[in-house]
Amino acid sequence: MTENASAVLIGKKPIMNYVLACITFFHSGAKEVSIKARGRSISRAIDVAEVVRHRFLPDAKIKSISIGTDRFLPQDQEDGATATNVSTIEITLIR
Amino acid sequence: MTENASAVLIGKKPIMNYVLACITFFHSGAKEVSIKARGRSISRAIDVAEVVRHRFLPDAKIKSISIGTDRFLPQDQEDGATATNVSTIEITLIR
Repeated sequence: MTENASAVLIGKKPIMNYVLACITFFHSGAKEVSIKARGRSISRAIDVAEVVRHRFLPDAKIKSISIGTDRFLPQDQEDGATATNVSTIEITLIR
Repeated sequence: MTENASAVLIGKKPIMNYVLACITFFHSGAKEVSIKARGRSISRAIDVAEVVRHRFLPDAKIKSISIGTDRFLPQDQEDGATATNVSTIEITLIR
């Protein structure tokens, strides 16, 4: 994951909340904004990137998209409990 | 979207069905396999790419990831009906 960059972590709120967060970062002088999401929020992260690019900031470009896996160990270590894998995405927009 | 490549279109089936489809393409000689998804299936597409890479084909690499928007016009042209935008992803794996 990129450090030293403005990051928007996507959760369950409406898409426009995150779009506004991205635009605010750019308007406050950020050159790059990273949109990060995990699991089922990943499709929402792409919606956010597409809305920012197409509707609000046509000069914003996708610098990079990376995917990965986060591994969670179960809280209670019962017999047979296995780690859970969750996919992640990070979309970096640049202006 | 890439032409002339083996493509796996992600739907609502279990992830392992699509993982098996990718592996079958590679085993039958494909150098590249594209994993394509739209809307809520996008997070499943990333799961498929991660499982193929980490569990089955450690020599497979991500060649490219692209995102986009598909625009649907409503079927019945009522007053005020607007086009629907759906985000898309295409992950190209190379071996």
